[in-house]
Amino acid sequence: MEGLISGKIPDLTEISTSKLSSLDTAPGAALGSTRRKLRDEDVAPILATLDQHGIHILHIIGGNDSAETGMSISNEARIMGYDLKVVNVPKTIDNDLTETDHCPGYGSAARFIAQATLGAGRDAAAMGISSPITIIEIMGRDAGWLSAAGSMYKRDRYDPPHYIGVPEITFYEDVFLLRMEEAYRENGYAIAVVAENIKGPEGAIGGQTEPWFVDDFGHPYYDGPARYLAEKVSRRLGVRCRHEKPGTIQRSFMDSVSKTDAMEARMVGEAAIKAAAAGETDVIVSLVRGSNSPYKCDVNLVPLGKVAGNTRTLPEKYLPDESGNTSGEFKEYLEPLLGEPLQIPEHLLR
Amino acid sequence: MEGLISGKIPDLTEISTSKLSSLDTAPGAALGSTRRKLRDEDVAPILATLDQHGIHILHIIGGNDSAETGMSISNEARIMGYDLKVVNVPKTIDNDLTETDHCPGYGSAARFIAQATLGAGRDAAAMGISSPITIIEIMGRDAGWLSAAGSMYKRDRYDPPHYIGVPEITFYEDVFLLRMEEAYRENGYAIAVVAENIKGPEGAIGGQTEPWFVDDFGHPYYDGPARYLAEKVSRRLGVRCRHEKPGTIQRSFMDSVSKTDAMEARMVGEAAIKAAAAGETDVIVSLVRGSNSPYKCDVNLVPLGKVAGNTRTLPEKYLPDESGNTSGEFKEYLEPLLGEPLQIPEHLLR
Repeated sequence: MEGLISGKIPDLTEISTSKLSSLDTAPGAALGSTRRKLRDEDVAPILATLDQHGIHILHIIGGNDSAETGMSISNEARIMGYDLKVVNVPKTIDNDLTETDHCPGYGSAARFIAQATLGAGRDAAAMGISSPITIIEIMGRDAGWLSAAGSMYKRDRYDPPHYIGVPEITFYEDVFLLRMEEAYRENGYAIAVVAENIKGPEGAIGGQTEPWFVDDFGHPYYDGPARYLAEKVSRRLGVRCRHEKPGTIQRSFMDSVSKTDAMEARMVGEAAIKAAAAGETDVIVSLVRGSNSPYKCDVNLVPLGKVAGNTRTLPEKYLPDESGNTSGEFKEYLEPLLGEPLQIPEHLLR
Repeated sequence: MEGLISGKIPDLTEISTSKLSSLDTAPGAALGSTRRKLRDEDVAPILATLDQHGIHILHIIGGNDSAETGMSISNEARIMGYDLKVVNVPKTIDNDLTETDHCPGYGSAARFIAQATLGAGRDAAAMGISSPITIIEIMGRDAGWLSAAGSMYKRDRYDPPHYIGVPEITFYEDVFLLRMEEAYRENGYAIAVVAENIKGPEGAIGGQTEPWFVDDFGHPYYDGPARYLAEKVSRRLGVRCRHEKPGTIQRSFMDSVSKTDAMEARMVGEAAIKAAAAGETDVIVSLVRGSNSPYKCDVNLVPLGKVAGNTRTLPEKYLPDESGNTSGEFKEYLEPLLGEPLQIPEHLLR
């Protein structure tokens, strides 16, 4: 978008096949990314850039903000009498787009989180008294899809995680602390997975009420909840509680790219190109699951207006309970998205 | 060790082959772990437990603390006239044992860190102005082997990381900040990899001087340096600086287990069993590199006394410079330990 506004757009017509295929597992958005919200005054320069290059098809890759952007540009083009097809391509690790089974990006990030939870759990169990509790802070602006993925390899009360905090459920500190204590007493270790954006009954929880830093422009920077909660747990139980923050690593780790996710990312891109060529506009490609075993997924087209401005939070049946469990239904939903199955190691001594 | 002292030790003689082989990629120490330092009064109960079960061979898995433990127990057994062979098995992600080319555990953790740096770099480059700078905090008590691994995929000034902080080199805040600014101005993004234990000219740096929490027993808990430094960078450059803390995830992530590392972990274990059966004692298995291409590595035995209490820091030729580079020599050392080569994606727009 920055490129369209400024008039500086890259020519992608002569990319080599090897470069293109190396992008299949490349971390980061190869075309760059923006958090800029489209302003009214942006649309004219965008249309000017498109016109200058004779571009009549626009693909915007992203989530529900991008859907709004697509609608605005398309509407303005229509008013100006400029022939433009807008076909969006879904992409968000948050998995919070409506009208689609899931979003490209989610499967790979979820694979990372499921494994990080398993690994941090085995690590804490092995460390025992010297470092028995870990809180992992996970991304996800308004929805708990990513945090819920931490439950994938939990089979029983012993397995991690022992608590999952999601933005959909009000976070009560005392419930959380009680649960951590209970899990630690029962298993000798405890793992919590919390979304960076969980909210308590009074809004932002403890560590988020005071910014850890305010920049010169007055923008406040908040800590996520994990560090604050780790202090509370350490204080209550008298043992070390770690707080891990994989941050952007969870969405950019090449070894845990889900093959299914990578394949579908290509699939939705190709579908968008075909749709635009067939004259479709003001739509976004969606994924429609046919079956779970064998996993089958197909593409469809959905009007941008149905997606723009909407957030798909976890439905009731997928919400984690207070002990870090999710339903079998959620795991059936999630598992095929993670790609090649992980061979879960047995416990030697349990 | 806890088990030997308390007399509660597991019987491992009837583990199924499937369980055993599932441990090859299992996160965490399957037998548990301890941070307990052996006390004089621990040795008698340990020998009593060994005697009770008729055990005359002891394998201790670990680093230089474990080497000291092995020597103490062996000495005491000799004094008591108890026949005991002690053959240690090397294991530490810190890679700081002397008398060995490298330590099992290091290759896999280094693989994680190399990829995390690459991924966080591509992510920050794509995010641009909305989130262009990231500091990754890495483990490593006294040595920078793990942090240095962040340089593996850096080929030029543009590639991440742009700074590596290791415990071997005094950390100067102003040098660091200048370097981050320079890299950001030059490339539009910047990545730093810092060991959690870097020290400034006056010891612990900023964020470490005040504990973020003191527990009821008076144990202080310190923040690592990343959060403190992220604030400094944000303040200086007026842009968002993230701080990521993969914590125990970096040493327990199944998808990034190095095949070479897993194979060698088995190899040193088998060598220890053979050595003890052949009557060796007071030794630790070491790894001796034969050649780099093709990579060849063999085992050897080293007296525990040469390893106990010593730390192998990064030698001069492997130290990172102030721009996040390491030498070709270091990369040649590191690369075969990482297992299957990563296909580094090309840059679409660079």
